[in-house]
This record gives sequence, C-alpha cells and structure tokens, in this order.
Amino acid sequence: MSSPASVVSSKTAFPAAARQELLTLLGARAVLDRKEDLTLYEYDGGVDKHRPDLVVFPRTTAQVQAVVEIARKHQLQFIGRGAGTGLSGGVIARNGGLMVSFTRMNQIEKIDLPNERVQVQPGVVNLDVTLAVQTQGYFFAPDPSSQRACTIGGNVAENAGGPHTLAYGVTTNHVLGLDVVLPDGSNFQTGGMELDLPGYDLAGIVTGSEGTMALVTGARLRLMRQPELVKTVLAIYNTTKDAADTIAEIAGRLITPVAIEMLDGVMLRMVEEATHAGYPLDAQAVLLIEMEGLKEAVEEQVEQVRLACEACHCREFRIAKDAAERDLLWKGRKNAFGAVGRLSPFYYVQDGVVPRTRITETLLEIYKIGEKYGLTISNIFHAGDGNMHPIILFDARIPGQLRAAQLAGDEILSYCISVGGSITGEHGVGMEKMELMAKQFSGDTLDTIKDFKNLFDPECRLNPGKLLPLGKCCGEIHQPANTEY
Amino acid sequence: MSSPASVVSSKTAFPAAARQELLTLLGARAVLDRKEDLTLYEYDGGVDKHRPDLVVFPRTTAQVQAVVEIARKHQLQFIGRGAGTGLSGGVIARNGGLMVSFTRMNQIEKIDLPNERVQVQPGVVNLDVTLAVQTQGYFFAPDPSSQRACTIGGNVAENAGGPHTLAYGVTTNHVLGLDVVLPDGSNFQTGGMELDLPGYDLAGIVTGSEGTMALVTGARLRLMRQPELVKTVLAIYNTTKDAADTIAEIAGRLITPVAIEMLDGVMLRMVEEATHAGYPLDAQAVLLIEMEGLKEAVEEQVEQVRLACEACHCREFRIAKDAAERDLLWKGRKNAFGAVGRLSPFYYVQDGVVPRTRITETLLEIYKIGEKYGLTISNIFHAGDGNMHPIILFDARIPGQLRAAQLAGDEILSYCISVGGSITGEHGVGMEKMELMAKQFSGDTLDTIKDFKNLFDPECRLNPGKLLPLGKCCGEIHQPANTEY
Repeated sequence: MSSPASVVSSKTAFPAAARQELLTLLGARAVLDRKEDLTLYEYDGGVDKHRPDLVVFPRTTAQVQAVVEIARKHQLQFIGRGAGTGLSGGVIARNGGLMVSFTRMNQIEKIDLPNERVQVQPGVVNLDVTLAVQTQGYFFAPDPSSQRACTIGGNVAENAGGPHTLAYGVTTNHVLGLDVVLPDGSNFQTGGMELDLPGYDLAGIVTGSEGTMALVTGARLRLMRQPELVKTVLAIYNTTKDAADTIAEIAGRLITPVAIEMLDGVMLRMVEEATHAGYPLDAQAVLLIEMEGLKEAVEEQVEQVRLACEACHCREFRIAKDAAERDLLWKGRKNAFGAVGRLSPFYYVQDGVVPRTRITETLLEIYKIGEKYGLTISNIFHAGDGNMHPIILFDARIPGQLRAAQLAGDEILSYCISVGGSITGEHGVGMEKMELMAKQFSGDTLDTIKDFKNLFDPECRLNPGKLLPLGKCCGEIHQPANTEY
Repeated sequence: MSSPASVVSSKTAFPAAARQELLTLLGARAVLDRKEDLTLYEYDGGVDKHRPDLVVFPRTTAQVQAVVEIARKHQLQFIGRGAGTGLSGGVIARNGGLMVSFTRMNQIEKIDLPNERVQVQPGVVNLDVTLAVQTQGYFFAPDPSSQRACTIGGNVAENAGGPHTLAYGVTTNHVLGLDVVLPDGSNFQTGGMELDLPGYDLAGIVTGSEGTMALVTGARLRLMRQPELVKTVLAIYNTTKDAADTIAEIAGRLITPVAIEMLDGVMLRMVEEATHAGYPLDAQAVLLIEMEGLKEAVEEQVEQVRLACEACHCREFRIAKDAAERDLLWKGRKNAFGAVGRLSPFYYVQDGVVPRTRITETLLEIYKIGEKYGLTISNIFHAGDGNMHPIILFDARIPGQLRAAQLAGDEILSYCISVGGSITGEHGVGMEKMELMAKQFSGDTLDTIKDFKNLFDPECRLNPGKLLPLGKCCGEIHQPANTEY
C-alpha cells in the first residue's frame, strides 16, 4: 500500500497540441480539463486519489483508437475509467495524464437469447444487462455490491465477483469475447459469440488485468437462466465462531447455496440502523444464505440448511416469506458500505481470501489486529468463498489514524497469505496492494507479470504505477499518490 | 490442415553430448532413443505423425527444469506429452527433437476435501482424480471421452471439455493454479490452493495454449460435489431434424440438463453393433440427456424433458432404471470412436462449434459435403453446446481418399465459422487446423497470439509449428509432417 503524501501535480503540463487534436476529434462536449470538473475524476471507492490532466468521453471503438493514437503521438500516459466504483485505486491517474471515460459507450448492442449471449459496450452498467433480459427469464451473473453503478468494462478489468460468485464464479467465467484497443493504437477482437474459441485465451488474460494491458471497448457476455425459485434465509448467532462454523457445516453436508454472506456484530448494528432490514441489534453475527433452483430442490435445501445452522447453535432462523422480505435482507447487505459511512467519517475496506476452513481463526486474528492499532474493525463478507471484507473504521483528521488503518490492513492480508490465502478476492491490487504482491508471489512470477505488461505496453503509458511492487512496476514516478483529506 | 507427404527425418542428428547429459541426469531407464521404441511416440489420436529423436521420462519438476536446461544449452527443439490421446496433432514432434513424457509424474500429491481442492502431477490420469475422491462424495468435472487414459497435463494444454461441459464448463474453469517450466529453464507457480489470485491470469493463459508456451509440471484443481441423484434418458427419433429441434425446445423451456449428446443414424448403428447399448438400429437420431441434482428436482426435470422430446415427435423416451442401465447408455457414447474403428479402417474426427440454434442446418450441410466428396460422415456430438463432432470415414489405401476427407473437414469447419461458430470446441488447433486460424481470426489477433508465443518462447524451441498458420508460426520447417499410412 502506498503511503500518504502531499499533493503531487503532474511534472509537465498537458500538451496544447494534444488537447486541440482531442477537441477536434470529439468536440468540446466530450473533453473536460477545468480543475473543478477534473476533481470528480480524481478518486475511486478506495483511499488514494490524484487528478488526471484531461478527461475524454469517446462513443465508439474507432474514437477510442483515435484517442489512443493521439496519446501515442504525444507520448502521453493514459488510463481508462468506468463508474469509478473500484476499491483498490485501479482508476486513479496517479501521474496525471489523459483519462478515457467509457460512460458514454453505454449501449447494449445485441441480445441473442436462444444462445444466451449479449454484446455490450464497456460503459453499460452491470445491472442494466440483467434489466434488459429479466422479463424473458435471464440474468447476468456477476453481481458486485456496486452493481447499480459499476460498468461492464470495470467488471472485466477487475474480474469482479459478488455474493453469488459462490455458485456462478467471477466475471471471467461469463466473458465470451472482448474488443480491445492496445496502447500502440491497434485493436483486436477475441471471441465472437461462441463459447470456446481456439488459440490462446486472450480474453482471459485481459480480464482481471486491472486496466494495465488494454482498453476494453466491447464485450460479449454469457447470460444465465433465472431459477424457478429463490429462497433467502437469515441465521442469527450469539457468537461469531458459531456463525463461521456453520459455513464448514453446510459444506460438510454437501449443500450448495448460491450465496453465504456473513455480517459480524459491529457491522450488523450499523446496517440495521441505516436500513431497518430486520437484523437483531444484540446478535454477534448473522449469515445471509440464499438457495435457488427448482422449487422442490430449494425447499429441501432450506431444511438442510436449517439443520446445519441449528447444529451450530444459531439462535434464530428466519426465512424470507416473499420477494419483498428477500429484497429487504439483501438491501442490508448491499448497502452495508453506505451504512458504515453514516457512522464513521472514514473507513478502509479490505479484501482478503482464506481457505473457508480458516475463517474463524482469521476473524479472531482480525479483532486482535484491531485492538493492537486501537481501531474498530467490522466484517461483512462472502463467507462461502472465504473472501473476507474487514472494514477498518478510522478518522483521517486524527494524525496517524490513516496510517494505522493501512498498517492494520496490511497485517490482515499478510495473515491471509500465511494461512494459504490471497491478498485480494475481487477488489484487485491497483495501487493499494502493490507492495503486498511481493509477499504473495515469488520474484519469478512477478517478472512474468512484468513481461506480460511489457508485451502489451512496452512504453508503460497505460495505467502506470499499478499492480506490481515499486521497482518491479513500470512508469513509476517514485512518489506516492495523494491520500490527504 | 497439413497435407500428406512422405516421411521427413530430422535435419540433424540428436547431439551425442545432449544424449549423454540426459542419461546422466535421468538414468538409462528414463531415456528412449531406439527407433522401435520411438515409433510409439510418433502419433496421437489424430491423423498426423512424426517421430521424436529421443524421449525422456522425468519424475520431478527439478528434473524437468534440468531437461529443459539441457535442451536450451544444445538449442534443441522439445515438446511435452501426456497420454497421446489428443486429436489435433498437438503432441506430434513434427521436427523431431526431444520429447518430455510426463507419464511417470503421476502422483496425486494433496487432497483437501474441506476446501474442495486437489494438487496433482501432470501425468495423473483424468479419471484417477475422481476415483481418489468419489467415495467421499466428490468428483473432478472435466470428462473428455478419453478420460480413462488422458492426463491432467494434456487436459490443461488443450483446455479439454467433455459431455458435461454443458453444466460444468471446460478445464480452465477447474484449474486453480499451475506450476510451469518455461523454455528458458525458469519456472513459476501461479495460484496456490486459492480460488482467485491477484495479478494477471497466468494459469488461464497457459491453459489451452496447446503446449506451446510452457511445460506444466503441477496443477491445483477444483473438485465438485457429487449430485444426490443422476438420471439419464435416451430419446429416439425418426428424423435428425426432430432431434436437433429438441435441443432448442429444451433451452426454450428453461431446462438445464448437465449433458445433451446426439448420435445420428449412421453413428448409432455403428455404436450399437459394437457395444449393444440398446440403441435402436432403425432410428435416424438419438439424444442422450442427463440431469442431476437433488432427487425431487431431477425427477421434475425428467418429466419436463419428456414433454420437450414429445413436442418434437420423439418416437420413444427411455429412462435408465438404474446405474447399470445408465452406464450402458454412456458406454455407447464413450466408446463411439472404437465402434467406428471396427467398421472403417480410417476415420477423421472433426470438432466444430456452432450456435446451438444452427445445429439442424449445420447437420444438413455436413451430409451435403459428405455427398460431394463421396464419403460417409457420421455425427456424434455435444449438442447442448453446439459442439459438433462429424466423423469422416475414409480408406487411406485408396488414393485421394485421405485428401478428400481432409478437404471435407475443412469445408465443414469453414461452414461453422460462417454461421458464427468456431473451428474447435475442445480438440485444439495443433497442426491440424493451423491454416484455418486465418479464417477464424484477423491478422491483428494472429499477431497478438504470435507475440504471446514469442514472450514465452522467443527461440521457438517448444512445440514448434503448431497453432498459427504457416508464415505466422515460429520454428517452421516448411515441410508438412508425415501422414502416410
């Protein structure tokens, strides 16, 4: 993680000739470079920030190619951006430069229901894909908590997951093909509407590359069929350990819910106060468990899950009676970060993965780390996948608290690695976890990642200073980005 | 596809010093170079063949690294090989050189059932993974027809699929991490036992790279839980069109079987004569449909599938009564290629993909192409995925028939591309379909594939002359391989 530092401005001014070429190409309404406008593009959902020098809004792949060509000609650094909901600083223009916003490339171009495929532009909002096909019985599976705002291009860049990753996998499992523009201005298309194309898996390597390889200008996605029945239950516990044990118990009984989400006591009280979702204020943990499929199967699964929860001493087991109750339970989960924001002026969301048999001990370690740094840490996470999201509350106006939060986060992630886990489940490395990559991987693996980066972007102009540790990373400024509040 | 030609021998003899170093490293029992031994390593399941100069059998990753180091020092071309069951010439040493057989690296190294993972060496046979965990209720999902013989290393190289790909996806969906040795002798590890690691998806790009990027020396795989109940049904039709229509009908009714396999009349008669699986000799097509899950759900699905089949005029609908009947139905499907071999001395299996709404017209086109070339073409395929396997019968002893079979195959695949499909669903490009890659992809995409190849193997010594069209491909000999019989 980068250290906080004072504001750094770009070393050189944005070239006037490049600005004029972009204006001629796209028109004045598609170019922003006033400081008050640029401020909107200096942050994402994480803790780092830095202003780009100029933001453009292309509408077609050809325009994106032309923009990249101008960047190439003037040797500008550039970066793509969707909705800016990412949590690891992936879309922070940490060296300034040109930002390519995809928010106006927001068309669903083709829907092919018989073959369960859809073709979209990168700025389409995740949930809008599902809204376009849901009356015909289909949905797009990846469901990050930000799905009402985040875009498909961002989902592809970060290989986004969500609560239903447990059943449906992450974004890469739902990408059939991509259109991409490379930093040299060339483009290629991988994948038509087919499921399995020959040759190297180019769509696969671009997916999850965190915007450091190519700009995605189109995506062909797989649709899924809606289940006949969905049942959501809330299991309430007096101890965190009992809730964590339930996850192993459900696995041991060979039940496969489509989502198992856990909220600890600190979190569920914040969520309840904000959303009135019906979470009990005195509990130490709740599990939100969802099952779906054919009616009879789901009803049997609900009973099996009830037995598993009771075997682990759950004090109450509530089944959502109808769609309204179900939406209310999920509203609590999906708006958790907003609920935290009501109570704490600043918070820092972490994203570590552990084998799901190690959840209980990891939670205890997280609480211990919180005590050590004098910070409250609440937990809300994809328990079925072992994908933990500790949320570290702090107040950046108190000197030292931001730094303490960052150190606590690093310590939690180092613990995740030590039990055979990973430093990120779905938020990405970005600029937040660059230094932790050296703990996760050997030097040889980091060198291979760097080789790939060089292959796509030998001049290190696309989204520089991300993903790899400083010293391994290209396009470095050797000056950390702004995290001042 | 390469043209038939006379035997080509390697241009230069295998260096005596390299041979001696390999003998010193591995011992005489792990090195083969007598012609009669090498003959066993000159073919795979496809139509091309060529002898390697020397075959080695390492037992550890360190030995593989040392072998690759010797190859590097002597500038030898080299190639990895599992069980040799591939169907596109992926393991043919078309320039001779050194072959690395993984058959003695066949240990299952770690089973972690609570987290549903297993770690294996590359020479482990696909089915042995399932056999090791099935009594505890788990299985390894990818199930190519060759699963009793083919190895995990080969499955990874070819990104193998199988009948249950419809429900469970292909090999890449079940690979958590790989250990690989690169052509320069270095190695790297991607993925521990975790589901989702940060950084570029290196395991993903190696999976499906057809042995042209790296040698895989270890794999961490995802296990799946066995369903509570499996039901297999056989639907029998008087016309091929009715059978093909049923696939769309099942999709339209939002039923999701785990497998839908189709055999046309020519094929089902050959299979029945060989296996006595109970397929009717006078039918024009059968569908083998499997459903699995919780008991109540499966029973409801069987009824829904029955209605879909009846709506498409199936003349009979048989439900396998028990595991023995189910195994018999699958025995027919899984031994189909052996059944063909009983009747025709030579056959050529193709592997094209079409959108599943285009299956009927594609089948009619295949029959038309067969008539044009005077060849019988039978069809057995993963209908639910639109993954067609036309089997072209020919007699290579009749001058011109092999060439006619190859031309017919190319014509079928060109048709698949023209309706929005792909030249391979699961068999790979290998040396068989290199030229068709130029029909499937633009020059830019082929260049990108070549860039990736150069990144891993700049000297083009690993599995040369594969995957890319001649002229785009590295390590070329500009002389086709031997397909003489």
